[in-house]
Amino acid sequence: MPGMSDSWIYATYRLQVAATAAAERAEQLALEQSIEMPLAAVMDERVRTQVVARVESVAEQSDGSHHARLALASETVHDDPGQLMNMLFGNCSLQPDVEWVGLDLPATLARALGGPNHGIEGLRARTGAQGRPLTCTAIKPIGSSAQALAELCTRFAQAGIDVIKDDHGWANQASASFAQRVQACQGAVRAVNTHTLYAPSLYGHHGQMREQLELARRAGVQAVLIAPMVCGVATFVALKREFKEMLFLAHPSLSGLRIAPEVLLGQLFRLFGADAVVFPNHGGRFAFAYDTCRRIAAHNTQPWHDLKPALPTPAGGMSVERVPDMVRDYGQDCMLLVGGGLLSAREQLLERSHAFVQTVERVGCSPVL
Amino acid sequence: MPGMSDSWIYATYRLQVAATAAAERAEQLALEQSIEMPLAAVMDERVRTQVVARVESVAEQSDGSHHARLALASETVHDDPGQLMNMLFGNCSLQPDVEWVGLDLPATLARALGGPNHGIEGLRARTGAQGRPLTCTAIKPIGSSAQALAELCTRFAQAGIDVIKDDHGWANQASASFAQRVQACQGAVRAVNTHTLYAPSLYGHHGQMREQLELARRAGVQAVLIAPMVCGVATFVALKREFKEMLFLAHPSLSGLRIAPEVLLGQLFRLFGADAVVFPNHGGRFAFAYDTCRRIAAHNTQPWHDLKPALPTPAGGMSVERVPDMVRDYGQDCMLLVGGGLLSAREQLLERSHAFVQTVERVGCSPVL
Repeated sequence: MPGMSDSWIYATYRLQVAATAAAERAEQLALEQSIEMPLAAVMDERVRTQVVARVESVAEQSDGSHHARLALASETVHDDPGQLMNMLFGNCSLQPDVEWVGLDLPATLARALGGPNHGIEGLRARTGAQGRPLTCTAIKPIGSSAQALAELCTRFAQAGIDVIKDDHGWANQASASFAQRVQACQGAVRAVNTHTLYAPSLYGHHGQMREQLELARRAGVQAVLIAPMVCGVATFVALKREFKEMLFLAHPSLSGLRIAPEVLLGQLFRLFGADAVVFPNHGGRFAFAYDTCRRIAAHNTQPWHDLKPALPTPAGGMSVERVPDMVRDYGQDCMLLVGGGLLSAREQLLERSHAFVQTVERVGCSPVL
Repeated sequence: MPGMSDSWIYATYRLQVAATAAAERAEQLALEQSIEMPLAAVMDERVRTQVVARVESVAEQSDGSHHARLALASETVHDDPGQLMNMLFGNCSLQPDVEWVGLDLPATLARALGGPNHGIEGLRARTGAQGRPLTCTAIKPIGSSAQALAELCTRFAQAGIDVIKDDHGWANQASASFAQRVQACQGAVRAVNTHTLYAPSLYGHHGQMREQLELARRAGVQAVLIAPMVCGVATFVALKREFKEMLFLAHPSLSGLRIAPEVLLGQLFRLFGADAVVFPNHGGRFAFAYDTCRRIAAHNTQPWHDLKPALPTPAGGMSVERVPDMVRDYGQDCMLLVGGGLLSAREQLLERSHAFVQTVERVGCSPVL
């Protein structure tokens, strides 16, 4: 039947239940994430056949858990990104035996949400970084003055770093308000060169973020940092649609739900419109496994409907010394984010930043993959 | 020093680490949730003394975990609710050895965020329900027509239920759009009586929710359902401030972070402005423990700064038969939510709904506590 393939979203959940209970648990989950009531109480035949989620398969895994693949009716999500999160993981986020580990979307929903406006190609075009990973750093610490942050921006831009982003803790603090940061940091960067991007961190709700984006745009800012799980994914998608010329770097703050990182950071952040996705790399301050990180990057970049690829951005306690590792892991299509690892150089900040840029140029142009 | 007591937010985290590693892990966490860089790299003395989070204490618990109590600088949060989540649990949500289990706020921040506009007293005043728990149900299933939902509303209002809320899966689906539901359901309820409240479910971002609230208000709607973790807590707080006459029922969808439910649903949802807080009761479809549920209700209602109490609303697979249990657990100051348990009666929906209301009136007026 034409269009029927677009009627269902397929999600896979890992169930931590005994083998004898797996089939029934999957059926319960299908009700929980669709009609949220006993099937026997449904009086409408259309709802029973076209709206109730279906268990497609239940398969035992090598670790003893079970993967349940469910078909969820697209009409329950309509075209709302918040509703996608709500229907696919809202209630079962509160059920500790369930983890969301896989997602297949119908093309219509992928098109409706639309993915990145620019993606990897756009980030390369704006920064002029070709044939190597991009470089990125963050301005810290919170509590600094706008003037101090601007001085950091000057050094980083002089070193030739591609993207200088606000630390994700920056909002509208008194020591350096959003408006003060935009003016001071964007000004400092532009005084040095025309290709380094400064990305301030957005805060608040959709209306507030619109004002911040308008202010930033007037100042010549071309990229911003946003935390979709803090502001809500519907806010993110709306802003991406309204500010089409802007690059959006997505931060994983508050992402620690039981959603597999390759789904949330790999697929969903790209789907919602992240041009670059910051994620905690293995071997840093976070516990993500090597394989998980590789899968995040793969989901950011591999062909998926007509969505542009997003730029994987490993981070979280990285250093200049880790650059060869990261290039080996992620190849050229990534952005390497070193923050505290540069600032630790203190008075030698410019030299360390230069070393970062030069290492990426040397190592990153001929990756061993 | 005057005002200094308002300079710090105190948060307690449970750390799953060995005793020998606990002190250092707590120090790492203090950096992660404040300046996110090595202390040695901080050149600004003010930041070192007034911005970096401090470890107040680390105490081993009977289960072998450690409770680290941290003081976090209020200036890093300023007055933004999203930023409160970001600074207190943003990055460490991605560190599985950390759970956020306790919160003490300075009075200034509590006042700034403001809590419920109406709370328990307001819900009692609007519904006329005094001296007993309130009754609540949900209209389901998704996929129904607005007409079918309105017919359910008629029955529920005839039975005298206090609050009829949308199932939290309702957004703006084609089968019954937000506008269609408001018109049909609010109309159906008002045709029966003047005291039953219909609460439609909000979707999307702040700007979309504003339009929904304005539409609902024009139709005479006095209460709405909102999922703060889906839409973003800053969206919720802004709407609560802008629609002061409206009652907000908060739904826990997507709340399954490693934040203790008594903190997230008990304290934070109240702080942000929930007049009533829906939570999954023990012994239903969710795994929350009895003690956890009691603590959620206690945090909703106990004195806390000048914030009005929120109405604890146990839910998630409850039934008319569970009413005496719930009254024993939560006393009179709660709202009992039975959804599928009423709809399962099918053709006897009105009778089952009557039985629900009458049981609450009989059992709920003289609770055994």
